[in-house]
Amino acid sequence: MPRLDELGERRIIQALEPILNHGDLELGLEDDCAAIPIGDEYLLVTTDVVNRRTHIPRGATGRQVGWYTAAVNLSDIAAKGGRPLGLAVAMTLPRTLDVNYVKEIARGLDECCRAQGTEVIGGDTKEGPDVSLAGTAVGLVPKDQLMRRRGARAGDIVAVTGHLGRGGWGYRNLRQGKPALEALLKPTPRIGAGRLLAESHRVTSCMDLSDGLAASLHQLSSLNGVSFEVEWERLPLFPKLRRATLAARREAALYMGGDYELLFTVRADAWPALKETLAKGGQGARAIGAVVEGDENLLIAERVIPVGSKGYEHFS
Amino acid sequence: MPRLDELGERRIIQALEPILNHGDLELGLEDDCAAIPIGDEYLLVTTDVVNRRTHIPRGATGRQVGWYTAAVNLSDIAAKGGRPLGLAVAMTLPRTLDVNYVKEIARGLDECCRAQGTEVIGGDTKEGPDVSLAGTAVGLVPKDQLMRRRGARAGDIVAVTGHLGRGGWGYRNLRQGKPALEALLKPTPRIGAGRLLAESHRVTSCMDLSDGLAASLHQLSSLNGVSFEVEWERLPLFPKLRRATLAARREAALYMGGDYELLFTVRADAWPALKETLAKGGQGARAIGAVVEGDENLLIAERVIPVGSKGYEHFS
Repeated sequence: MPRLDELGERRIIQALEPILNHGDLELGLEDDCAAIPIGDEYLLVTTDVVNRRTHIPRGATGRQVGWYTAAVNLSDIAAKGGRPLGLAVAMTLPRTLDVNYVKEIARGLDECCRAQGTEVIGGDTKEGPDVSLAGTAVGLVPKDQLMRRRGARAGDIVAVTGHLGRGGWGYRNLRQGKPALEALLKPTPRIGAGRLLAESHRVTSCMDLSDGLAASLHQLSSLNGVSFEVEWERLPLFPKLRRATLAARREAALYMGGDYELLFTVRADAWPALKETLAKGGQGARAIGAVVEGDENLLIAERVIPVGSKGYEHFS
Repeated sequence: MPRLDELGERRIIQALEPILNHGDLELGLEDDCAAIPIGDEYLLVTTDVVNRRTHIPRGATGRQVGWYTAAVNLSDIAAKGGRPLGLAVAMTLPRTLDVNYVKEIARGLDECCRAQGTEVIGGDTKEGPDVSLAGTAVGLVPKDQLMRRRGARAGDIVAVTGHLGRGGWGYRNLRQGKPALEALLKPTPRIGAGRLLAESHRVTSCMDLSDGLAASLHQLSSLNGVSFEVEWERLPLFPKLRRATLAARREAALYMGGDYELLFTVRADAWPALKETLAKGGQGARAIGAVVEGDENLLIAERVIPVGSKGYEHFS
C-alpha cells in the first residue's frame, strides 16, 4: 500500500485512470483538460487547485493569488485552442482571514479573466485550515480545431510562445530574498495565441509549459514516440535572465517551470505562414528546434547534451 | 477589516458580488450554479469543495467521501433542471496518504456519477495538508427549462422530493457514536426529478436542500418577497426518524440540512398532473404547503410557529 510520495503525481493519475476512464473520454486523464462533444464543438473543462501553503510564496498579495489561479486554469484552455466561457472558483478559507484579503483575491481573478475576454461565473466558499483556490475554467473549441498532445511527427518544427525562464527567474530571486512575485505569479495565459494556432489547422500537438520545457518535451516524446532536438541559442530567454550564469539560465529555461507558455509542434512547411499570422495577431512565438526520430531529447549548445525529463512534479 | 467569521458565508458572497459580477451573469453569485448561454441551451457550471477535516466525520471511507463530493455537485445541476455532462475533481492530498484511499475516492466519485448517467471527465491532483476535493459539475439545460430561485408566487404549492431529515438523522447518530455514515454521506442527487420538473414548464422556483428546509425557505422568501406556510404533518420524514422525539424530528427535518432533496414551487393547478408525471418517472415528491403573502414563514403543527431562518452556514 504505497504512500503518494512513493509514487509521484503521474503514477497516481495512472492508478486512477482504469477506475475513472471507461474508454469514452476524448482526452485521457493524463491530459490537463477534458473535451466533451457538444454539437460541432468540444466543451473544454479543466480544473487546477492553488494551495497557498504549497504554491504561493510568503508576501504574495491576494490579488496575485487570484490572478495566478485564473491564469493557470485559462492556460489549459489556451493549450487546447479554446475560447474561454468562464471561470468558477471554489475557495477554502480560514475563518480568521480578513475579508479584504478575499476581496483582493476576487479582484485578481477578475482582472486576469477580463484580460482574456472572459469572467468569473460563480463559485463556492468553505471554511478550512488554509487558503486553497480550486479553479475550473470552461471553454469551447470547434471539433476540427482541438489541439491535442498527440500528433507530433518527425520533421515537424517545435516552437514556443513568449519567453522561457520567467517563472524560474522569479522563483530563484524570491529564494534569495529579492522582489520577484510578479514574475512568478502573473503569467499570461496564451488564449489569443492558442486560438490562432488552432485556427491554422497546422499544429500537430500542443501543451502548456507548467512544469518546465524539459518535462513537457519528455511528455510529448512519450506520447508520440518521437524525440526533440532543441537549440539552446534559439530559446527565447526571459530578458531578466540575461545577467544570470549559464547554469542558472539553463536551470530556469529548461527545468524550473511556471512559464505557462504554449509548447507546440507544427508542420515545417506551414511554419513561416503561421509565424507571420501569429506576429500580425501580436503573438510572439519562436521555433526552437525540430521533432526527430531519436531516442533521447537533445539540447544543441556548445556541445550536444541530453535534456532529460526533470521538472516539477507534485508528491515527489 | 472584519474577519470572515464576523460575516458568515452569505455576507462574504455579497461582498464579492460587486467585484466579480459585472451585471451580465444569468444567475447571480448567490446562486450555487452558473448558467452560460450556448445556442438554445444554458451550460450549467457549479463547484463545491469538500474538506475532510471540516465536512467529513471520522471513520468515513474514501468511497463515501468520493460519492459525497460527486453528489453535492450533481445536486446543483439537478436543481436547475439540467442533464449532467460530467464532473471534474481537483484533489488536494497529503503526501503521506495511502494510494488505496485515493483509489477508493475515485470509485466513490465514479459510482455516484454513473448512477446519474454521467462520469468523471478529469481533474487535478496537488499536495496539501489535508484531503480536499473540489468538484465541478457541468451540465446543459434548454433555455426555456432553466429552473431559477426567483419566480415563486403567492398561491403556488411548495413541494419536496424524497425525505427530509436524512442528513440530520445521520449527523445526530454519528455524534452519539452510532453508525450512520451512509445516511450522511450518500445522498442521491435528484437529476431525474429535476429533469421532469424542468420539462413540465410549471415549476416557478427550485433549489436543493443543502442547508436545511428552514434556511432554504428563508432564502426563497427573501428572493421572491413571499412567505411559506408549511404543514408539519405533510413533511415526508426520513423513516428512521420516526422513533426520535418530536424535538429531534423537527430539528432534523427543518434545520440540520444535508438532505440534497429538491425544494420547489409549482402553480397550484399544475400540481396534480406534475405529481403524477413524477410518480410515473419513479420520482417521489410531496406537497408540504403553500406560498403566501405573509411576512414570516410559518409551520402549521399542533400550533402555528415561526419556522425561522436557521440552518447551516459556513464561517458562522
